[in-house]
Amino acid sequence: MATLDPGIGEKFSRRTKRAINHDGTFNVRRRGGPHRHDSYQWLIQMQWWPFIGVVVAFFTVLNVAFAGAYLVLGLDDLPGVAAPRGWWQDFLSALFFSIQTFTSVGYGHVYPGSNGSGFISSVEALVGVLTFALATGLLYGRFSRPTARIHFSHTAIISRRPDGTPCLQFRIANQRNNTLINLQARVLLKTIDPGTNNQTYAFLPLERSEVSFFPLSWTIVHDITPESPLHARTAEDYARLDVEILIQLKGYDDTFAQEVHARNSYTHDEIEWHRRFIRAYEVDDDGIAVLDLDQLHLTESLG
Amino acid sequence: MATLDPGIGEKFSRRTKRAINHDGTFNVRRRGGPHRHDSYQWLIQMQWWPFIGVVVAFFTVLNVAFAGAYLVLGLDDLPGVAAPRGWWQDFLSALFFSIQTFTSVGYGHVYPGSNGSGFISSVEALVGVLTFALATGLLYGRFSRPTARIHFSHTAIISRRPDGTPCLQFRIANQRNNTLINLQARVLLKTIDPGTNNQTYAFLPLERSEVSFFPLSWTIVHDITPESPLHARTAEDYARLDVEILIQLKGYDDTFAQEVHARNSYTHDEIEWHRRFIRAYEVDDDGIAVLDLDQLHLTESLG
Amino acid sequence: MATLDPGIGEKFSRRTKRAINHDGTFNVRRRGGPHRHDSYQWLIQMQWWPFIGVVVAFFTVLNVAFAGAYLVLGLDDLPGVAAPRGWWQDFLSALFFSIQTFTSVGYGHVYPGSNGSGFISSVEALVGVLTFALATGLLYGRFSRPTARIHFSHTAIISRRPDGTPCLQFRIANQRNNTLINLQARVLLKTIDPGTNNQTYAFLPLERSEVSFFPLSWTIVHDITPESPLHARTAEDYARLDVEILIQLKGYDDTFAQEVHARNSYTHDEIEWHRRFIRAYEVDDDGIAVLDLDQLHLTESLG
Amino acid sequence: MATLDPGIGEKFSRRTKRAINHDGTFNVRRRGGPHRHDSYQWLIQMQWWPFIGVVVAFFTVLNVAFAGAYLVLGLDDLPGVAAPRGWWQDFLSALFFSIQTFTSVGYGHVYPGSNGSGFISSVEALVGVLTFALATGLLYGRFSRPTARIHFSHTAIISRRPDGTPCLQFRIANQRNNTLINLQARVLLKTIDPGTNNQTYAFLPLERSEVSFFPLSWTIVHDITPESPLHARTAEDYARLDVEILIQLKGYDDTFAQEVHARNSYTHDEIEWHRRFIRAYEVDDDGIAVLDLDQLHLTESLG
Repeated sequence: MATLDPGIGEKFSRRTKRAINHDGTFNVRRRGGPHRHDSYQWLIQMQWWPFIGVVVAFFTVLNVAFAGAYLVLGLDDLPGVAAPRGWWQDFLSALFFSIQTFTSVGYGHVYPGSNGSGFISSVEALVGVLTFALATGLLYGRFSRPTARIHFSHTAIISRRPDGTPCLQFRIANQRNNTLINLQARVLLKTIDPGTNNQTYAFLPLERSEVSFFPLSWTIVHDITPESPLHARTAEDYARLDVEILIQLKGYDDTFAQEVHARNSYTHDEIEWHRRFIRAYEVDDDGIAVLDLDQLHLTESLG
Repeated sequence: MATLDPGIGEKFSRRTKRAINHDGTFNVRRRGGPHRHDSYQWLIQMQWWPFIGVVVAFFTVLNVAFAGAYLVLGLDDLPGVAAPRGWWQDFLSALFFSIQTFTSVGYGHVYPGSNGSGFISSVEALVGVLTFALATGLLYGRFSRPTARIHFSHTAIISRRPDGTPCLQFRIANQRNNTLINLQARVLLKTIDPGTNNQTYAFLPLERSEVSFFPLSWTIVHDITPESPLHARTAEDYARLDVEILIQLKGYDDTFAQEVHARNSYTHDEIEWHRRFIRAYEVDDDGIAVLDLDQLHLTESLG
Repeated sequence: MATLDPGIGEKFSRRTKRAINHDGTFNVRRRGGPHRHDSYQWLIQMQWWPFIGVVVAFFTVLNVAFAGAYLVLGLDDLPGVAAPRGWWQDFLSALFFSIQTFTSVGYGHVYPGSNGSGFISSVEALVGVLTFALATGLLYGRFSRPTARIHFSHTAIISRRPDGTPCLQFRIANQRNNTLINLQARVLLKTIDPGTNNQTYAFLPLERSEVSFFPLSWTIVHDITPESPLHARTAEDYARLDVEILIQLKGYDDTFAQEVHARNSYTHDEIEWHRRFIRAYEVDDDGIAVLDLDQLHLTESLG
Repeated sequence: MATLDPGIGEKFSRRTKRAINHDGTFNVRRRGGPHRHDSYQWLIQMQWWPFIGVVVAFFTVLNVAFAGAYLVLGLDDLPGVAAPRGWWQDFLSALFFSIQTFTSVGYGHVYPGSNGSGFISSVEALVGVLTFALATGLLYGRFSRPTARIHFSHTAIISRRPDGTPCLQFRIANQRNNTLINLQARVLLKTIDPGTNNQTYAFLPLERSEVSFFPLSWTIVHDITPESPLHARTAEDYARLDVEILIQLKGYDDTFAQEVHARNSYTHDEIEWHRRFIRAYEVDDDGIAVLDLDQLHLTESLG
């Protein structure tokens, strides 16, 4: 009854794009329902420059708003501000006072001299410290989010064993200095029936599906034996069936003591035929293995 | 000897409510003993608006208390405060000074001019910074608490396989954009003996109890074969036996690198008979699958 | 070859105390070697009142030290301080200025008016903000440390099954409102040879060693069948062999998404003979089960 | 097909150094590719004194830069600064104002009196609070990073069982007061073919590969039975084959509720022949076992 569908779906009204993108995401969108826009997740996962932009924008908008409130109240309530010199200068004076309150610098050459400005500045001081509490949490959350940076070879290859058995291979390495251990790989084949658009899945057994340590590169190998669903398939078959090799990796990041996962896929046009990988590391004079991440992608013809 | 009781209890003096609520909690209360009221847990789990209310209330109460202390000491100890103008104005002056100290803004137009006010403001400054340290931790704790937001279909259904086998089904989807992987389901049947009020439990084997990926919806299916404890039961039997379908889900949130769990149950009056689910996703022009969370609940008659 | 020693040791020069204390710790001390005194762990695990005492003491010592530095420099370097009025008043003035700097309140009625005081106050301001950064981390660490608060019945009991089989029982409940799931128990018997002081261990198989849910109490039962190492042993045997029942619990805290563990033991004088537990929960008018933690310990004679 | 290579590599152009260093790292370097220098990881893993140095340096560089900006603007924009008295004094005045702004102390005896200085000080105040938010996260990250401090005996030994079977042993203990439970060990033999430099690996089965508790020392034992790859090997063989004993430990830190790992290795010149370990703990007058970490390394001749 149960098929090998890994949860991606079997019946679709039309042909779909690749199931898994190179960054590990799925080609799926959600709509309707009680779907939540998770602002925390959004702020944690975005790139650094946009994140800094959001922080600066948030800081600016809040302070401009408070500056506006002080202006509405009148600058007479803020003793120490120079005599009115036009709206732009008044706005800047209010803005600087606001920022000094928000960041709790509070030089005091300008200060709240009325109940109204005392109340607004009290609220602003509270909002300010809570905002920085929030920023602290976000910065820590961004830094401590465990992410495996597994580097995949650009292409998978169809190679050949010394005994003549053809095999599917791809190669991975750890981009980071983090120590990854107990790394496990699972590989599935996705094909699409050209007639019905139905998707079918099959596990591709691996020569070795786990390594204890992962300091160098790891070449993951599926032997195309007569039992393999890839047996006797040509490059044309791969294209016709819209072959996609789905990869799921799981390991333990010993530096941050957390389980980490990675996903990727190779579509039929990302598979090179009749190639083999060139070794990506060498031993230097000190007996230390040096891994060259650029060479991870290097293949040569089987000749 | 050992029964299938999942830890909810078998013998009760009276008939109990549903075992598991829709939010995953149990209908159990604790009393007596060294039971601890965990304020951290309470502050972490409460909704956002009440939480902000608690923060504002805490901030207000502490500052009113410190303002009271300054008033008791006398405003003469706070140079810079305008001459006494009645208790309300004096209170506000003390309160604003307190808040400026608590948030460490410290403009300085009012300052502690005696040993008494120097001591109180020192204590307040320490309490203030520690309070915001606490708020920082709480805000981070609230944000980073991993919670699976699994959306369950409003009802379970009794449907029929192409080969005529009846089956129990319900459907789930991920409300969030978080990537959930390796999702596992376990389903139990709870029945209550109408005579003795004793509760009995039975596992309901599933067509598929695990999916590797969970980008779309997942329909969880129990086939009502002759071996099933639901075999040949009618809707009337379900009501008489107070049938409750208990669901336990477990998965891995790849976005936050944490195991997540969800629970739910369907009682006999939340089961629709002779229905099937309508597919909840379609493929758009870009080949991207679009999941409509509102359609997760849609069923139609088997006809 | 391998024995059942769970890692506590078999051969000792003398008779040892109980292996596991009621708080889950072991009766072992370390000395010598590169043993590290982990101040973080110490600050995280200590009770709240001592912790607050440490924080206040640390704050006081640092500020007294900085106050001393300002005094050595001379209060002339701190314009705004009232004219010298004796060492105690001078010390207080320096201390208040120090605290206003340390907490970054900085009213400014006293300020650093020389390079010397400017330098010291700059260092103090940096030390101050870093200290509060540290305090923030410690407070969060204290709150978020996952701890299972499993309440154990004060005694284990030797009871009897309806079919006459004797059995060893004890009872546990969750003190907290946290949701514990997938709770597993493992129970070992430790005996000490009265002649050699050698310790031997044996697993005690359980009627049920895991529960999926844990909202109520759980009675853990070992049947004393002829295969049990407790078979035909009397209370006198228990005392002679220094019997200790070692308990290891493991579960998943669904509220904080973390694995939690608990340990405990019952020594021979904490075992009651010929008793049974009285049910510790009842169902109220709303159909809600109410667990009374005080009744967890209640036993009655088998009669 | 699959060999026992734990992921360290089999074919090398030259002879390599030991695979695993005593601190658990591998003798591997990365170059090229999208390799990321992870500053967070670097700041989290470095020693405390260098870390404090980085913090102070960062703080100093930023404040010197802001002081420079104020100087460029001219000290007339900072009312309250004493009249110009040479570049060094002016620089110090600007630096102290900068630090008072950066740490949000803001005494206010010096304050931004122009739009230019108002803008720069606003930016500095924001940078300051965000920097301390960052420092908070780093300090917490440093403290809460789970690290098992397993103390290994300096040498492994070749000993002999009472029945005459030779065995390989080494001994470990927990340096910390953390409670480690469910500790698992895995031991591999690495040999290098003197001719081809090829590396081969073999598992060494252990007398006991897991302990539930780990309060004392644990002696890990591999019996050199005829099936063992070490059978009938001499110390000369060990040297010729460049024997390295690779050790992987995994446990659960019950104090911080996190899985922890440790690695180590013994090379052929770190193995002592014909020795046995001297017991490293004794029982004191209170019946408490006292473990002496210094004695962990003590061995004596088999005699």
